[in-house]
Amino acid sequence: MDAISLTDKLTQITDCWSPRIVAQLNDTQFKLARIEGDFVWHSHADTDEAFFVVKGQFEMEYRDRTITVHEGDLVVVPKGVEHRPRAVKECHIMLVERAGTVNTGEAGGDLTASNDEWI
Amino acid sequence: MDAISLTDKLTQITDCWSPRIVAQLNDTQFKLARIEGDFVWHSHADTDEAFFVVKGQFEMEYRDRTITVHEGDLVVVPKGVEHRPRAVKECHIMLVERAGTVNTGEAGGDLTASNDEWI
Repeated sequence: MDAISLTDKLTQITDCWSPRIVAQLNDTQFKLARIEGDFVWHSHADTDEAFFVVKGQFEMEYRDRTITVHEGDLVVVPKGVEHRPRAVKECHIMLVERAGTVNTGEAGGDLTASNDEWI
Repeated sequence: MDAISLTDKLTQITDCWSPRIVAQLNDTQFKLARIEGDFVWHSHADTDEAFFVVKGQFEMEYRDRTITVHEGDLVVVPKGVEHRPRAVKECHIMLVERAGTVNTGEAGGDLTASNDEWI
């Protein structure tokens, strides 16, 4: 019930591609992440996933097209849709997705992060 | 799956206290609103409610205290908790709450808005 400053919280994150939970709404969590470089192709079978750009911009690759998501933009990737975020320069994002969602979804691999770390 | 510019969408809203839906994530919706002045005391029995400040700032009154929510801040009001937002100057916010949520919750009254209008 206190105000959460996203920029303050982001100073507590040092690693890229390691989302940290900052708030929960019903069964949905808000997570912050720093991203830079290419992520992995993946999808989430059980949840849609929203991305909001706090600072910078990134590209979201879909299998048939790529979009640019600018600072202040929101994008929702429906469940089951393959996607790959990538950021040429470091970008700060807020993720909104069902609690328990793993960042690499069905893909796994080295970039898989813990899905239960609060800051 | 396209990027949604919150500031562009807000130009389509003219009335205060009239949330408009811009995206849906599972059973949860993202709504934008302009707010100015005092809202009504209310609560939501069935859903938590998140407020993110896109532009400006507002105060969130709880029965035992008042907090200021600044630009770039997120706050989650748990289900059943009485609250009253108020903004001395016009403020632009994004609400995140379960689909079907009525803005005035259990309180009703003149400020009750349609809860199913997309922009």
